Amino acid sequence: MAEKTYEQIALIGAGVIGSGWATRCLAKGLRVVLTDPSPDARAQVDQTIENAWPVLEDAGLAGQGDRTKFRFVETIQEAVEGADFIQENVPEREHIKIEVLEAIDRYAAEDVVIASSSSGLLPSRLQAGCRYPDRVVIGHPFAPVYLLPLVEIVGGEKTSPEMIRRAGSFYRHVGMRPLHVRREIEAYIADRLQESLYREALHLINDGVATVPEIDAAVTGGPGLRWAFMGTFMAWHLGGGPGGMRHTIEQFGPALELPWSHMKAPQLTDELKNKIIEGCETESGDRQFTELERRRDLCLAGIQKVLSEHWYPHDQDGWPEMD
Amino acid sequence: MAEKTYEQIALIGAGVIGSGWATRCLAKGLRVVLTDPSPDARAQVDQTIENAWPVLEDAGLAGQGDRTKFRFVETIQEAVEGADFIQENVPEREHIKIEVLEAIDRYAAEDVVIASSSSGLLPSRLQAGCRYPDRVVIGHPFAPVYLLPLVEIVGGEKTSPEMIRRAGSFYRHVGMRPLHVRREIEAYIADRLQESLYREALHLINDGVATVPEIDAAVTGGPGLRWAFMGTFMAWHLGGGPGGMRHTIEQFGPALELPWSHMKAPQLTDELKNKIIEGCETESGDRQFTELERRRDLCLAGIQKVLSEHWYPHDQDGWPEMD
Repeated sequence: MAEKTYEQIALIGAGVIGSGWATRCLAKGLRVVLTDPSPDARAQVDQTIENAWPVLEDAGLAGQGDRTKFRFVETIQEAVEGADFIQENVPEREHIKIEVLEAIDRYAAEDVVIASSSSGLLPSRLQAGCRYPDRVVIGHPFAPVYLLPLVEIVGGEKTSPEMIRRAGSFYRHVGMRPLHVRREIEAYIADRLQESLYREALHLINDGVATVPEIDAAVTGGPGLRWAFMGTFMAWHLGGGPGGMRHTIEQFGPALELPWSHMKAPQLTDELKNKIIEGCETESGDRQFTELERRRDLCLAGIQKVLSEHWYPHDQDGWPEMD
Repeated sequence: MAEKTYEQIALIGAGVIGSGWATRCLAKGLRVVLTDPSPDARAQVDQTIENAWPVLEDAGLAGQGDRTKFRFVETIQEAVEGADFIQENVPEREHIKIEVLEAIDRYAAEDVVIASSSSGLLPSRLQAGCRYPDRVVIGHPFAPVYLLPLVEIVGGEKTSPEMIRRAGSFYRHVGMRPLHVRREIEAYIADRLQESLYREALHLINDGVATVPEIDAAVTGGPGLRWAFMGTFMAWHLGGGPGGMRHTIEQFGPALELPWSHMKAPQLTDELKNKIIEGCETESGDRQFTELERRRDLCLAGIQKVLSEHWYPHDQDGWPEMD
C-alpha cells in the first residue's frame, strides 16, 4: 500500500499543546485547521506561532513552513473535513475526551487516524464509544511541541497495528521521534518517569530538605545535562567506567535496598540485571565505549555553550545562593 | 579574613571520579597530587586526561591548564602535604571511607578542607573518627567531573559553617556550581531524584512495559532535553502557559493521587502548593514569562543542533525501532 501523503491536519483544542501542534505542522508546510470553543483560543495560537517562528526559522526548522496556511473554524465537523490526520488536545478529563473523540469519529473519514494528546489516560477507555475505534490512538507530545521530538504512541484494545504504524509515519513526517508504548498503562512511560522524580521532589520540599530552586539546580547542574541525550541507563553505563553498566549495577545495586528515595524498588534479580546490561549494549549499538564517551563530552561542552549564550548569560543567573 | 588561594589539590583515590577531578583541576591550572593503591590507577588517570583534554581545549575550558602539573605519589601522607584542598574518591563503602578520611585527617594541615566525593553516605558518620571533624564535608560531583558543574556540599553535625563556605569557594574557583544541601540526608538531593526515576524505570522493565533503550528514549526525546537547563518545576511552570505553575498544579495536582508511578506522593496541602508556586517565582527572578519561554526555545533549538552534530549525526541513531 502506498504511504499516505499529508497535506492537512485537524486540531481539536488549542491551549499550550494544540498551539504547539499548530506551530510544528505549519513549520513543516502542512495546512492546519483548528477548532476550540474558548474565546481566547485564537489569540493563544497566534501568540505561540508569533513567538516560536523566529526561533524555528533561525534553527532552520521552518524551511518548508508557511504561517498563512492556518484556518480557525467553529465546529469539529468543519475542522475534520478533508483532514489527513487528526490530533485532539482538549482538557485532560476523561469524560470530556471521550465525548470529543466520539464527535470527531462521527464526522471524520473512517480511515483517518485520530490521535489524542492525552498525557495519561487509557486509550481503551477513550475509544470505547467510537464507531471506528481501530483508528483511535494516543499521540502524547511534550511541550513545547514545536521543538521537542518525542511523541508516545499508545494503542487501546481496539486499535489496529496499521493505525499505530500510520501514526508513527505521520509523526516522523513532521520531524518527530515516535516511541511505541507497547503495553497500555496509565501515564505511559515518560510521564511515569517524570512523575516519580516529581513526587520525590515534593517529598523533599514537604520535609524541608530543599527549596524549588535548589531542587531544580540539582537537576540542571548535573544529571539533567546528561539527560538531554542519554537516559539514566546510558549515563550510568558510561559513568561506570570501562566496566560499563555491569560494573555500575554491581556497585550501586545494593543501594536499591536503602531508603534513597521514597519509592520501593523491584528486587534486582539476575533476570532484571541481564535485561538492563543487555539493554545498554543494544543502545550502544556499534559504537565503542570510548567513542560514546568522546561524543558525550562533545555534547556536554556544546550544550553548556548554548546555555551560557541563551539561558544564563550572566554567571550565576538563577543559581540558588549558598547560604 | 582573606580568601584562601588555591595552588595544589590532593586527590585520594582515582577511578572515574578521581580521574575526573584531576582533569578538571589541571584544566584550571592547579597542581594535582594523587594517590591510589591500585596498579591501574595511574593509567586510568592518564587515559581520562588524554581523552578529555582536546574537548576541554576546543571548548575553551583548558585555557589556564597545564597537563604536566600532575604528580602520582605512593601514600596519603605524601599526597596531602602542601595541599590547599583535599578531595577523597575511594570506593563507596562506609568503612573504607571512614578509615581513609581518618588517615587524611591525621596528616593534613588542620585548616584544610577534606571533601569526600561520596554519593550518598552521611557526613556525620564519615567524620566521626577525625581529629578535626569540622573541616570534613561531602563534595559530591557528577560524572564526567571535568564537564558537569554541579557539586553538592553537605556538612555533618561537626562540620563548621566556615568550612562549608570554603568548600563552596574552592568549587567555584574550579568552575563549578556548588549546591549546599542544608539538611543531612542519605543520597542528598540529586541522587534521590535520579534514584526515584531509576526505580520507576526498573519497575517498567521488570513489568515488561518497556526496554532499556525505550526508557532512555522516553527521557532524551522530551523531558530530558528540558532538564539540561530547567528542572521539573521550571519546566512545568512554563508548560502551564501564562498561568504558570499555579495553573499546572491545579490541573495536574489530582494526578498525584493516581497510580502514575510506584511512589506515593505527599499530600498536596495549601502550604506545599504555595512553596512550589513561590519557588517557581523565585527561580524566575526578574525574567518575564515570555522572555523565559523565548530563552527556553533558543536553548532547545541550540541543544538539538549540538546533538545532531555530535550524538546522532545519522537520523535515527540509537532510537528504538517502532515495531
